[in-house]
Amino acid sequence: MTRTVIESKTKTAVIGFDEPFCVIGERINPTGRKKLAAELEAGDFSTVESDAVAQVAAGATVLDVNAGVVYNSNPNPNETEPPLMTKMIQLVQGLVDVPLCIDSSVPAALEAGLQAAEGRPLLNSVTGEEERLEFVLPLVKKYNVPVVAISNDDTGISEDPDVRFAVAKKIVERAADFGIPAHDIVVDPLVMPIGAMATAGQQVFTLVRKLREELGVNTTCGASNISFGLPNRHGINNAFLPMAMGAGMTSAIMNPVALPVNQARIAEKKAEVEAAGIILPADIDDETFVTLFGLGSTRPRPGKEMEAIRAANLLTNNDPHGGEWIMFNKPADEQGGATSGRRGGRRRRG
Amino acid sequence: MTRTVIESKTKTAVIGFDEPFCVIGERINPTGRKKLAAELEAGDFSTVESDAVAQVAAGATVLDVNAGVVYNSNPNPNETEPPLMTKMIQLVQGLVDVPLCIDSSVPAALEAGLQAAEGRPLLNSVTGEEERLEFVLPLVKKYNVPVVAISNDDTGISEDPDVRFAVAKKIVERAADFGIPAHDIVVDPLVMPIGAMATAGQQVFTLVRKLREELGVNTTCGASNISFGLPNRHGINNAFLPMAMGAGMTSAIMNPVALPVNQARIAEKKAEVEAAGIILPADIDDETFVTLFGLGSTRPRPGKEMEAIRAANLLTNNDPHGGEWIMFNKPADEQGGATSGRRGGRRRRG
Repeated sequence: MTRTVIESKTKTAVIGFDEPFCVIGERINPTGRKKLAAELEAGDFSTVESDAVAQVAAGATVLDVNAGVVYNSNPNPNETEPPLMTKMIQLVQGLVDVPLCIDSSVPAALEAGLQAAEGRPLLNSVTGEEERLEFVLPLVKKYNVPVVAISNDDTGISEDPDVRFAVAKKIVERAADFGIPAHDIVVDPLVMPIGAMATAGQQVFTLVRKLREELGVNTTCGASNISFGLPNRHGINNAFLPMAMGAGMTSAIMNPVALPVNQARIAEKKAEVEAAGIILPADIDDETFVTLFGLGSTRPRPGKEMEAIRAANLLTNNDPHGGEWIMFNKPADEQGGATSGRRGGRRRRG
Repeated sequence: MTRTVIESKTKTAVIGFDEPFCVIGERINPTGRKKLAAELEAGDFSTVESDAVAQVAAGATVLDVNAGVVYNSNPNPNETEPPLMTKMIQLVQGLVDVPLCIDSSVPAALEAGLQAAEGRPLLNSVTGEEERLEFVLPLVKKYNVPVVAISNDDTGISEDPDVRFAVAKKIVERAADFGIPAHDIVVDPLVMPIGAMATAGQQVFTLVRKLREELGVNTTCGASNISFGLPNRHGINNAFLPMAMGAGMTSAIMNPVALPVNQARIAEKKAEVEAAGIILPADIDDETFVTLFGLGSTRPRPGKEMEAIRAANLLTNNDPHGGEWIMFNKPADEQGGATSGRRGGRRRRG
């Protein structure tokens, strides 16, 4: 069976057909996060630190690290991104012991990451673009690491799944020319938003099955793309992930952490509660308030997608005897040393 | 494409490969419901009425009706069940306009149901048992109705999915001898509890795909069996249903309604709230209380499984343009005449 082995200094994560789904935490990435980008330019790594810890606590077994920030002071990422990647990798692997996924579009940043990472990181990514193939595959060979292969090429991203399969096949074949085995290639077949393309789900499920059966490769995706632009995105993601796993998907790059309840929501709820004639103690703290009123938590905790993934692990026979499921559904204080707990198992159905 | 057509006097429900998943409401069934059984013996049909209305409101498009109660006053179901079936069918179809599924192990009750039902009901069920085949298939032919075929035979329920497939195949072939087409047979491949059999999920997904591809039949199941005996059953069911749909399952016999919050839970929560120093208005009503404190509702509403099924309809391209998904996620007061709403779409991720 296909097994992609990723390692930190002390821990091994395996992406595989007969393994629990591999959750690659996506949060350490300044793309589209202006606040984080500004922090990184200012040399403030506090969000990187908290995101690393929270994602591992929520159940990520690999962390993606992307240093793709464009500095106001220097708009050339070829100069700024490699040293930032080095710094971020060192920081993250000093804090948590999970293997890393080095994520950049800047060639020198990929190499900087490979030099800084301990163990056997996952490289993210090669595509079917000629220039990218020629640069990344020798790196993959030189450092003996697995790589994410994204199914677009010099013609862009095709809406035709057969073309995307052909691109993946080309990458696997080109890698073989470098002596890189198929089990070290994790194909991202590209997930389109279902709101824009009604066949997006079916495309992914068909592609994943075909990639697995015909090329023998593991697969990954940016899972939340599927629900882009639609209401109740978590409701869609929660169904998409088990379906993708049922089709044979073996990993995803995703956010495993639920959004903490913010101050605006707390203020809104307090107004609603007071309008109903309820009198709160003057000194009630935010966490007590949001817990009692069923809003979630002000602290990071696993997102609902982690429940869906753990249930699907059970249903694909990758949770022998249901031990992980039972542990996941125990109250946090009964989980012992487990880092993957959610708020508890006494929740009632509602 | 395979289409199983079920009709009431005024409405058509289609189970099909290119149709939204067909939810067959399972609640009108005294098996394991002592209170309902006692009510039925006493001639009280209030629970039947409320279950019929609540299930349709929650999104069931077919209602199963089972009159399998053993009276204390007369332990012979061959005498008591047929007239009760007639009475229940008449009552339910007077209240709601969805097609019905006539569910009994008593031959005379099946025939009584067929005589009472308007339109084209679904018959539940035939098995591979010789006696059952010989009795039910002529009824199916005589009344020109579709039938649920359960994959057990005179040797019982096999743990071997190949045997269960062979039983289904035998039923389809025997039906053909009676002139009954495959599209009028909805096979239940039998779902084992995942807690007792680690391959139970994989078995169902493989069987459903094979039944669809090789026999061209629609499929159904008792969906909640999968999570029997495990904690957080809804978490498992919510992943199982989209996975089964991804494999090609086209209907399920299930409870579409979330359990209302009961008085014990309200009392427990009030004690917790008061211990935190919160003062409630003396006249707060239960529904306001449970809504404000995020417990759900004292009134029936769609269970979480209905969200998973609607998301999976979208992902299997059976919700063109996402219209059903968007409507489902609107607040109830913006849903117009829709009967399928849940509590609203402004919910935050938590």
